[in-house]
Amino acid sequence: MSASVLLLSGVNLGLLGERQPEVYGSATLEEHAETARASAAALGLELEHVHSDRESGLVAAVHQARGRHDALVVNPGAFTHYSWALHDALAAFEGPVVELHLSNPHRREPWRHTSVVSPVADALVCGLGGAGYRLAVEAAAELLAQRGTG
Amino acid sequence: MSASVLLLSGVNLGLLGERQPEVYGSATLEEHAETARASAAALGLELEHVHSDRESGLVAAVHQARGRHDALVVNPGAFTHYSWALHDALAAFEGPVVELHLSNPHRREPWRHTSVVSPVADALVCGLGGAGYRLAVEAAAELLAQRGTG
Amino acid sequence: MSASVLLLSGVNLGLLGERQPEVYGSATLEEHAETARASAAALGLELEHVHSDRESGLVAAVHQARGRHDALVVNPGAFTHYSWALHDALAAFEGPVVELHLSNPHRREPWRHTSVVSPVADALVCGLGGAGYRLAVEAAAELLAQRGTG
Amino acid sequence: MSASVLLLSGVNLGLLGERQPEVYGSATLEEHAETARASAAALGLELEHVHSDRESGLVAAVHQARGRHDALVVNPGAFTHYSWALHDALAAFEGPVVELHLSNPHRREPWRHTSVVSPVADALVCGLGGAGYRLAVEAAAELLAQRGTG
Amino acid sequence: MSASVLLLSGVNLGLLGERQPEVYGSATLEEHAETARASAAALGLELEHVHSDRESGLVAAVHQARGRHDALVVNPGAFTHYSWALHDALAAFEGPVVELHLSNPHRREPWRHTSVVSPVADALVCGLGGAGYRLAVEAAAELLAQRGTG
Amino acid sequence: MSASVLLLSGVNLGLLGERQPEVYGSATLEEHAETARASAAALGLELEHVHSDRESGLVAAVHQARGRHDALVVNPGAFTHYSWALHDALAAFEGPVVELHLSNPHRREPWRHTSVVSPVADALVCGLGGAGYRLAVEAAAELLAQRGTG
Amino acid sequence: MSASVLLLSGVNLGLLGERQPEVYGSATLEEHAETARASAAALGLELEHVHSDRESGLVAAVHQARGRHDALVVNPGAFTHYSWALHDALAAFEGPVVELHLSNPHRREPWRHTSVVSPVADALVCGLGGAGYRLAVEAAAELLAQRGTG
Amino acid sequence: MSASVLLLSGVNLGLLGERQPEVYGSATLEEHAETARASAAALGLELEHVHSDRESGLVAAVHQARGRHDALVVNPGAFTHYSWALHDALAAFEGPVVELHLSNPHRREPWRHTSVVSPVADALVCGLGGAGYRLAVEAAAELLAQRGTG
Amino acid sequence: MSASVLLLSGVNLGLLGERQPEVYGSATLEEHAETARASAAALGLELEHVHSDRESGLVAAVHQARGRHDALVVNPGAFTHYSWALHDALAAFEGPVVELHLSNPHRREPWRHTSVVSPVADALVCGLGGAGYRLAVEAAAELLAQRGTG
Amino acid sequence: MSASVLLLSGVNLGLLGERQPEVYGSATLEEHAETARASAAALGLELEHVHSDRESGLVAAVHQARGRHDALVVNPGAFTHYSWALHDALAAFEGPVVELHLSNPHRREPWRHTSVVSPVADALVCGLGGAGYRLAVEAAAELLAQRGTG
Amino acid sequence: MSASVLLLSGVNLGLLGERQPEVYGSATLEEHAETARASAAALGLELEHVHSDRESGLVAAVHQARGRHDALVVNPGAFTHYSWALHDALAAFEGPVVELHLSNPHRREPWRHTSVVSPVADALVCGLGGAGYRLAVEAAAELLAQRGTG
Amino acid sequence: MSASVLLLSGVNLGLLGERQPEVYGSATLEEHAETARASAAALGLELEHVHSDRESGLVAAVHQARGRHDALVVNPGAFTHYSWALHDALAAFEGPVVELHLSNPHRREPWRHTSVVSPVADALVCGLGGAGYRLAVEAAAELLAQRGTG
Repeated sequence: MSASVLLLSGVNLGLLGERQPEVYGSATLEEHAETARASAAALGLELEHVHSDRESGLVAAVHQARGRHDALVVNPGAFTHYSWALHDALAAFEGPVVELHLSNPHRREPWRHTSVVSPVADALVCGLGGAGYRLAVEAAAELLAQRGTG
Repeated sequence: MSASVLLLSGVNLGLLGERQPEVYGSATLEEHAETARASAAALGLELEHVHSDRESGLVAAVHQARGRHDALVVNPGAFTHYSWALHDALAAFEGPVVELHLSNPHRREPWRHTSVVSPVADALVCGLGGAGYRLAVEAAAELLAQRGTG
Repeated sequence: MSASVLLLSGVNLGLLGERQPEVYGSATLEEHAETARASAAALGLELEHVHSDRESGLVAAVHQARGRHDALVVNPGAFTHYSWALHDALAAFEGPVVELHLSNPHRREPWRHTSVVSPVADALVCGLGGAGYRLAVEAAAELLAQRGTG
Repeated sequence: MSASVLLLSGVNLGLLGERQPEVYGSATLEEHAETARASAAALGLELEHVHSDRESGLVAAVHQARGRHDALVVNPGAFTHYSWALHDALAAFEGPVVELHLSNPHRREPWRHTSVVSPVADALVCGLGGAGYRLAVEAAAELLAQRGTG
Repeated sequence: MSASVLLLSGVNLGLLGERQPEVYGSATLEEHAETARASAAALGLELEHVHSDRESGLVAAVHQARGRHDALVVNPGAFTHYSWALHDALAAFEGPVVELHLSNPHRREPWRHTSVVSPVADALVCGLGGAGYRLAVEAAAELLAQRGTG
Repeated sequence: MSASVLLLSGVNLGLLGERQPEVYGSATLEEHAETARASAAALGLELEHVHSDRESGLVAAVHQARGRHDALVVNPGAFTHYSWALHDALAAFEGPVVELHLSNPHRREPWRHTSVVSPVADALVCGLGGAGYRLAVEAAAELLAQRGTG
Repeated sequence: MSASVLLLSGVNLGLLGERQPEVYGSATLEEHAETARASAAALGLELEHVHSDRESGLVAAVHQARGRHDALVVNPGAFTHYSWALHDALAAFEGPVVELHLSNPHRREPWRHTSVVSPVADALVCGLGGAGYRLAVEAAAELLAQRGTG
Repeated sequence: MSASVLLLSGVNLGLLGERQPEVYGSATLEEHAETARASAAALGLELEHVHSDRESGLVAAVHQARGRHDALVVNPGAFTHYSWALHDALAAFEGPVVELHLSNPHRREPWRHTSVVSPVADALVCGLGGAGYRLAVEAAAELLAQRGTG
Repeated sequence: MSASVLLLSGVNLGLLGERQPEVYGSATLEEHAETARASAAALGLELEHVHSDRESGLVAAVHQARGRHDALVVNPGAFTHYSWALHDALAAFEGPVVELHLSNPHRREPWRHTSVVSPVADALVCGLGGAGYRLAVEAAAELLAQRGTG
Repeated sequence: MSASVLLLSGVNLGLLGERQPEVYGSATLEEHAETARASAAALGLELEHVHSDRESGLVAAVHQARGRHDALVVNPGAFTHYSWALHDALAAFEGPVVELHLSNPHRREPWRHTSVVSPVADALVCGLGGAGYRLAVEAAAELLAQRGTG
Repeated sequence: MSASVLLLSGVNLGLLGERQPEVYGSATLEEHAETARASAAALGLELEHVHSDRESGLVAAVHQARGRHDALVVNPGAFTHYSWALHDALAAFEGPVVELHLSNPHRREPWRHTSVVSPVADALVCGLGGAGYRLAVEAAAELLAQRGTG
Repeated sequence: MSASVLLLSGVNLGLLGERQPEVYGSATLEEHAETARASAAALGLELEHVHSDRESGLVAAVHQARGRHDALVVNPGAFTHYSWALHDALAAFEGPVVELHLSNPHRREPWRHTSVVSPVADALVCGLGGAGYRLAVEAAAELLAQRGTG
């Protein structure tokens, strides 16, 4: 049976394709998810996508992923920078966690340089725009393979 | 003519495979470079590898890359955290720059959380061990494609 | 067709009139909204009021305001001080944004001196109690006029 | 008529008994609530339990507690460290507030050393695992007695 | 007898209309004062305007306002950020104080985020350009009305 | 044979009942110790009380407790905030340590927010006035029971 | 010939007797100066008083004191906390300098805890209200005597 | 009956006259105490002197002063900078407290700029060498007179 | 017509030649101005000198320089470190600004390491004593030449 | 006559051999002192050992060492990190001072990285366990020889 | 015999003329050196130029300058901000040191505001582009003349 | 076969004996190395000395020491304070590491108080001048003996 990856998209990501295309590109979130799905399929993985503008929506998705998904790819949006609730939820997930950002937060405002998710993420991929979705799925597959889960 | 990527390896990376395998894995730097080369070839890219324990060695390699290479993948080792010289050299390189680390520095000592390279890196890939070399090359290819250079 | 203003009220504001009247006055949130509506009407503007104790409720309201409202007046309550999610949502709104507080946060506890909303607010009105609602609407009208939207 | 205590459980606490038992013990949240209920009953108090992974769920519970409950025992989970919204809600509650943690946050990561709830809590009980629920209820009873409410 | 408002303009404001019109607009200080005067008249208030590039000029004006004016509207210019002398003078003024800025200082350089005047200001209006003068006068009128002085 | 608890009272606590009763209540230290003794007896524990205004007195008491007492309840008074000597002494005590304060230090001056004792305390009880002595003894009993010592 | 002391009074001190008598007492500045003069006379010293709300007024007075006065007693008002200009002027005065405050700044707001004058003051007298003027003059006399100038 | 002042001398002050005379002068502590006694006598006050190199010695002296002395003059030596125990003891003393230092700590090492005693001292006299003892006693007398105790 | 340079001298500079010659040298301000004038003449520039101990004097001189002078050489004295008013005035001057100090502030007290003038100065010359006046004028000439104004 | 060294042992060192042997080794303090005595004898030095858990005990020992001992070797235990009283006592000792720690504090908790003793210590030896006693005595002998005292 | 100046150029300066001409101008390093040489010759000085991208290259050049050159003009490039090795080397050079930058670092990123070279530089010239080379040589000549070496 | 120690000397140490003899003494580096060699021989150890002004020289020496030397004595000069590259190299060395400084850095400028080498050094010897070389070798021997390697 193939391993399963959960792609989590956080707050404001539904605006992708509409807002600040010079920063975030012109693709929509659904298109990014499609990229991820295709990448997963090519690697023999299943991929489910959950998007929520609610912190509790992401927390719940992480809770439900326990036992149902083998790895997480998470782009929390602005929650990256203050949601210790998400941090604690991720800390309780046993599989690998890949943190993903479209832009490189370290090149932007200082408050974007701190991620409360990083201390519980295994890997980090950022600054690649939509292509990051493909690479983050590959990263998850890689980590699963390293653990002999994938 | 195919685009060319320069892989830069910084200080202490020659010890890979020997020191702290529980942190850095058991592959040698040459094996990682081979991973990168193979990935590049698969993507139709050339890849050259320069390793130096000298800050000035990396700076010189970046200087020489100007006009000769189209993208950089750089794992500066400990220089990541204080070499403004490397920062300024990278700032003068026109092509995309991918910052790469084997481990996820944000899970380690606080002084590893600050990268003086990030402000001049387009993308960042870390925490994937040796597989990071493959993904970083893909990232470079992706960024070249986005700019129409690759 | 008259321009439209969205008044956004954040967390705990439903307690207005009940809690700490020596700080927040004795009017209810609905009365404040009525003040705002009357001011808007007097200026030839429509005004809609959304109140939510949920961060995601405010974010959703800002999303929906895109294309439907011309300006925002926002009193986020305690979200003012940490909701980068709201910051990012407001950053994607094209029209003018007026930040509003009943009291003057700069005279209170130090953590109230920092607003994560201010960097994306055009104007700020605070310390006027309920009358702030009237002035904030005037401020929004003014900003619309300056942009030729009002 | 007996006084009433509201026990509030915050984000991720539903995982108790499952995640990191070496830190949080093997009891479930429901078992902890039962401990609290039994303690309350022994002290002639009623106790109601509300659990929410949503910040707004806790805020709403505090709002509704006004006039219905005489004291609060609150273990906010990770909200402890950044939810000024919860702080403001608690500040508007007239009865005594007891802050409760299973572990002693001051022995853990630095970011857990700061509680935005403490400035509006009357008492604090932490580091006792499940027994903390019993002692926190006793603490609430004690504070009610001191105010002549219990 | 009508209440009286003193409008205080601080250092460099005499350059308005000349310097950096993209930041401060094209109106002169005298035109702004005229806006304020007209607003005051419409509200049945007298308004006097004092402008000084000298810190001591502002301090003296505040001293003289004691007993002669009922409220202050003050745009201290750069003195906002370091003149504790002005702070102490304003602290000794009994009537309401409205702090006014043409731009929103919280969107500019970090040193403009700190106001030593705010701790002694009742209300704050900023980011509205010249229209701020009208709203600040209304704010002063409002505060006077709240105190039963206006 | 019953387990034994040492209650340690630090500097200035001999003034209890005399100084600032609005903060610390009207009971004397001896009355608090009696509360603790009674609670211990009810739980089948012995309790000894040592009070010292000398840092070295507390350190010596902790040294002597090694092998003679099974648990510590310590209210160090102002030593809480700077006595690393007490920290190190407590670190060498094998049994459970309960930190106790009459008031909630986190609601008072900032320097009271830091406890150098907390990193070596298992549990913390504060803000309950004299009743804290009863609960702290219960906490100690609880921790002993958890370790199978009580 | 008797030695001469210059008493310098800074910004807002002309309000003494009027503003916040609960903090600053009911005496006027002139009455304080009279206290100083009487003390000086009793000690065989001349005393001249200069008051200015202008920083440059104080600086000029210090300049003119060079060669004309033997010691300075200076209560700079709010200039205490930021006037490096006054610091540099005092640094160029050869005789003893006594810093004087009516209240004890260290018990007030944090920004009053820093004095830019202290590094160039020989002695400091504060917290004594009007009596400080007598003691500061005695202090100046003492310092002159120690230098054999008085 | 005459009022009584307690002069408290802290750690290392017994070395006065021996160590670093260029900083602390050549008088012994006993000579300083004699100065203080003579000043007190001249003002119709009794003065007792307690010197201790032990923090607990000073704390005990402050405790015993309650009800026996009307005012305190305290030169805590190095305890000035960290003894919160002394702070709390002094806070429980009802009469006026004068903080005294031979040198001006604000001209010395940065760690001497912070006094944990100042927040509970009414007045401060420093930088006058031995003459400070005379002035500090006068200061105490003055404060007693202001309270109608002396 | 030759270009014109305004030399601005700030607070306490009138003491040059008198105070601390080991730091500032033995030349008077007038002699320094003469050096500057001679240098200007040799370069075909006019040079006017304004000296003021008043912050507002400097601000006024900068205002008046607009349209009358082509470049500024400014040694603000201690205003360098806190006069944001001067910063804002200089920001409104169109021509080049050269910041000048006799000594090298970076070798002196920490508070002299921060210049609020530097962010609006084009060039900086310091540490050369009186010769700095010659070089600063040359620097101004150079900047004018680069802009094609000189 | 042979020179004399005083070995000073601070708080909690009497527990050596008992507590945390994995950190501090299995030797007792007396055994360490014996090591030091033997080293001293071999170097023709006398060595006296004073151990105290009291800060004032150490201070007194330093006072008494003046004129009786030629050098100090001091391991203050936790006093290292906050006892400015010990700092000042050591500053008044004329002979060389060697600071000694069994472990290397710079590898432990951050608060152990700051030594208030180091600014008055001539030399520092740490991280050698019991052998540090031998080397510290040699260090003292060396410093005495350098000064021609040993 | 004429005095000799060593011009030192640090890391990345070889890129001058190529990279970011809008910041650094279009002249090459060799052209700048030629400017410096010409200036030196005009002043009767010899000038040698050493450029190195290696920190150790600069350190070695400073070492060799001892006894061979009379003054240094040093533009360390990015080493300015962290090379304490260069700091220590310069500290051992007896002659005058002039720090030189093409741009004004204080107008750029915050990390460029700190120079570890400034504490050992006599003078600083920056912000003049290529003309800075001429002025820095004049500055060195000036400092040599002041010391009677030039 | 005897154990082998590598003595590493860092940047600027070749100047010893020439520069600042009042700080560093009059011995040359070679003389210090000879001291170390003699001490090693007396202890039955071999000692090799490597000196480099290049960071990479030290890193290379540490790399080569792996498997060839049993212990390191390292005086990195200024690299002590920022060379994380050296930190990482030392972290990969299996044998004991002794950090050595001629002076006591904790008595000098604040930036010398931080050592990036200390977290990977077992022991630290400083402040003994040339004699430190003898003691550091003894320290290395001691650590080897403790590990049963020497």
